[in-house]
Amino acid sequence: MFDPSIYQARRAALARQMGEGLALFLGNGLAPMNYPANPYPFRQDGAFRYLFGLDQPDLAAVVELPSGRAHLFGQDLGLDDVVWMGQQPSVAHLAASAGVEHWHAPEALAPMLREALRLGRPVHFLPPYRGEQELALEALLDIRADRVRQHASEPLIRAYVEVAARKGPEEIAQMELAMERVTRPMYLEAMRLARPGAREQELAGRLEGMVLAAGSALAYPMILSRDGQILHNHSHANVLRAGDLLLIDAGAQSPLGYATDITRTLPVGGKFSPKQAAIYNIVLAAEEAAIQGIAPGVPYRALHLLASRIIAQGLKDLGLMRGEVEAAVEAGAHALFFPHGLGHMIGMDVHDMEGLGEDFVGYDRQHARSTQFGLAYLRLARPLREGFVVTVEPGVYFIPELIDQWKAQGLHQEFIDYDALDEYRDFGGIRIEDNVLVTATGHRVLGPRIPKTIEEVEEAMR
Amino acid sequence: MFDPSIYQARRAALARQMGEGLALFLGNGLAPMNYPANPYPFRQDGAFRYLFGLDQPDLAAVVELPSGRAHLFGQDLGLDDVVWMGQQPSVAHLAASAGVEHWHAPEALAPMLREALRLGRPVHFLPPYRGEQELALEALLDIRADRVRQHASEPLIRAYVEVAARKGPEEIAQMELAMERVTRPMYLEAMRLARPGAREQELAGRLEGMVLAAGSALAYPMILSRDGQILHNHSHANVLRAGDLLLIDAGAQSPLGYATDITRTLPVGGKFSPKQAAIYNIVLAAEEAAIQGIAPGVPYRALHLLASRIIAQGLKDLGLMRGEVEAAVEAGAHALFFPHGLGHMIGMDVHDMEGLGEDFVGYDRQHARSTQFGLAYLRLARPLREGFVVTVEPGVYFIPELIDQWKAQGLHQEFIDYDALDEYRDFGGIRIEDNVLVTATGHRVLGPRIPKTIEEVEEAMR
Repeated sequence: MFDPSIYQARRAALARQMGEGLALFLGNGLAPMNYPANPYPFRQDGAFRYLFGLDQPDLAAVVELPSGRAHLFGQDLGLDDVVWMGQQPSVAHLAASAGVEHWHAPEALAPMLREALRLGRPVHFLPPYRGEQELALEALLDIRADRVRQHASEPLIRAYVEVAARKGPEEIAQMELAMERVTRPMYLEAMRLARPGAREQELAGRLEGMVLAAGSALAYPMILSRDGQILHNHSHANVLRAGDLLLIDAGAQSPLGYATDITRTLPVGGKFSPKQAAIYNIVLAAEEAAIQGIAPGVPYRALHLLASRIIAQGLKDLGLMRGEVEAAVEAGAHALFFPHGLGHMIGMDVHDMEGLGEDFVGYDRQHARSTQFGLAYLRLARPLREGFVVTVEPGVYFIPELIDQWKAQGLHQEFIDYDALDEYRDFGGIRIEDNVLVTATGHRVLGPRIPKTIEEVEEAMR
Repeated sequence: MFDPSIYQARRAALARQMGEGLALFLGNGLAPMNYPANPYPFRQDGAFRYLFGLDQPDLAAVVELPSGRAHLFGQDLGLDDVVWMGQQPSVAHLAASAGVEHWHAPEALAPMLREALRLGRPVHFLPPYRGEQELALEALLDIRADRVRQHASEPLIRAYVEVAARKGPEEIAQMELAMERVTRPMYLEAMRLARPGAREQELAGRLEGMVLAAGSALAYPMILSRDGQILHNHSHANVLRAGDLLLIDAGAQSPLGYATDITRTLPVGGKFSPKQAAIYNIVLAAEEAAIQGIAPGVPYRALHLLASRIIAQGLKDLGLMRGEVEAAVEAGAHALFFPHGLGHMIGMDVHDMEGLGEDFVGYDRQHARSTQFGLAYLRLARPLREGFVVTVEPGVYFIPELIDQWKAQGLHQEFIDYDALDEYRDFGGIRIEDNVLVTATGHRVLGPRIPKTIEEVEEAMR
């Protein structure tokens, strides 16, 4: 854990943006896999860990508003539990390590909330995302479980996003650590393993094993596939063949739970074909230009559009697109090849704070979400601020189903040469992704460099 | 998947034990880790997979009683989903592969249930164990989520346990496969890796990586610790030292989701000390005698008591226990060293069907659960039947907190020499576990042999 003063400062910064009342934070419990006693690996709620640092299940906390004084609720183990589970830190000890002033047994939580409500003081909470959280809120606040999400507090969401979006140096250090100790070694190993004949599952397992052996865990389910054009593809059923492109999108958690999120696309067999190299360099140019553009005040949407134009220009140079690049991007024609957003914030959650509502995190009152295909999936649009950490992850994909759909509908024929696309139907997809800190004067890519240019990747695969 | 006729036969066997009505089975959804779009690896509900074989999220099914005719409910993907997720099997295809006669969109489920209830036909369901299941049942059946568990159907539980407890040859083949391809290689690798200076986390990660690389997954969170005496210990924070005992309790899933559950205790450095060897051989003798005793009609509780007597006799021979062995076990004195049960059923769930209620699975109307410390934790007591698969996992542990507690209370002084225990306080614990099929005439240990005797283990670690 960080020093208790860090968590106190975070809570104070949050509380001072709020009026009178209480803010309730439920830590996560163990999530049952197939029966209650067989749980998944424990994953603490991001906001709870950000504000209290505690990585134990079944805790809850209340922050008094606007003072920031805090209360921790948890069950101390009895001697019988110690026999089965070994010595565990007491709730008093946990509270002290989080700089929390008061601690209580779990039974004290409901009366504290009821008393506040009786006095007309609001009880704010963040949106739940597990059924158990909805049921706990129902029991505590007498709001029906299926309506609890609607009663989540917008002021608390906005205050939390305001505080947690700007990362401190201690958080950056965590993300750099996860890059250096786990993420980069994993990619270097992937570059050694991506040989013809290897099974995707074999690679994915060995890479996850490396992450676990380092005492870390994946930050999200790994994508590792020769079908990189299937964007939400978590299958690892293929065998790699010479000439395939292997797309790997994976990240690890730092010791205190911060995520990394990296993508590289590798030529199975170690050498990009000229056709692959041409597309790769378009994606790389888009990624590098977007990174170069990162600075405080720059709307992230402008970087998305910059990357889109570079992609459209590159595809035009290859004869796959045509017409005026600016107009093509404005019309959304490039989204046939780049149908997702350039990136998102990253922090304790890989899509940072996504559970609170993407628009609260990535948009603001001046920047509403587009409804255009492609741009509508952009998770982050608003101007960047110092301390934001964002992913930059453009891609170019040839998605046969989408090409057929657009072609059948005659979409954007002035910008797309559908006939020329025929020989790219089986190309797959390429994405390149790094994580970038917004500094006072510009930006810094986090972590030591992971091979990225064609020369670097081919060298690492030799 | 197995042949559709297998699932049809299972459903028919279940349904014919029930009266009129419907049996509702909710498949699992994706379990959110830290926000909805970041899920844990999917784990299907055991009963759903047993009866329908389908390993996709967000399905539900209804079985008409007592005919066994079945309905599958699921959402077919639209073209937009195909773009993001690739081609997926249709609900019609899933139904066919499970031998299910009818399939519907998810919206058809609630009206079918409502209509049945209106006609006075009961809707049976198994106990839920995830919040999302409770909320789904609330929405479907108009029972408050926090009361849903109480309304689970005892007749359905009993009928399901009756059918699913006796494994067919196709199920045994799955468990043997998981033993041969994943579990045994994992233990052989563990025996190579358990060297002084290695970190527990490093071993645990490498072993889990092997399991994943083989396309499998752990059946339950691995125990891998030099503190084997802490029974529910999932921490991997220690560094191994020469002379330690390393207890590893881990199992893998077969391609169709059947579990294995094996324990071995290894001498770090490759050689048991004479003191360790003496305790090891007591545990081994208990395990082997209990396995030898397995046959149809034998109450599993009798095997637990047999193993307990062997442990008590062995500890008496070492001067740690004293008095009459039979009387010591009857009084429960041996439970200071062997405080848990001998084992449990295993199948699709590692504690098979535990979510339905342990007593429905392991006990019957003639065999009630003991309240004595130790014996009260025995998950399985009733007479064995052909086709049951059970674990056999005796252990001897020296748990300082428990020893101190019993000694302070003066418990069982006629059977325990507390002074002699002093030099065992830091011993740790030893457990040995195999999975055993009850055959028509006796038993068969599943899978190829995993080194188990002192000679075999030391040989494998050389």
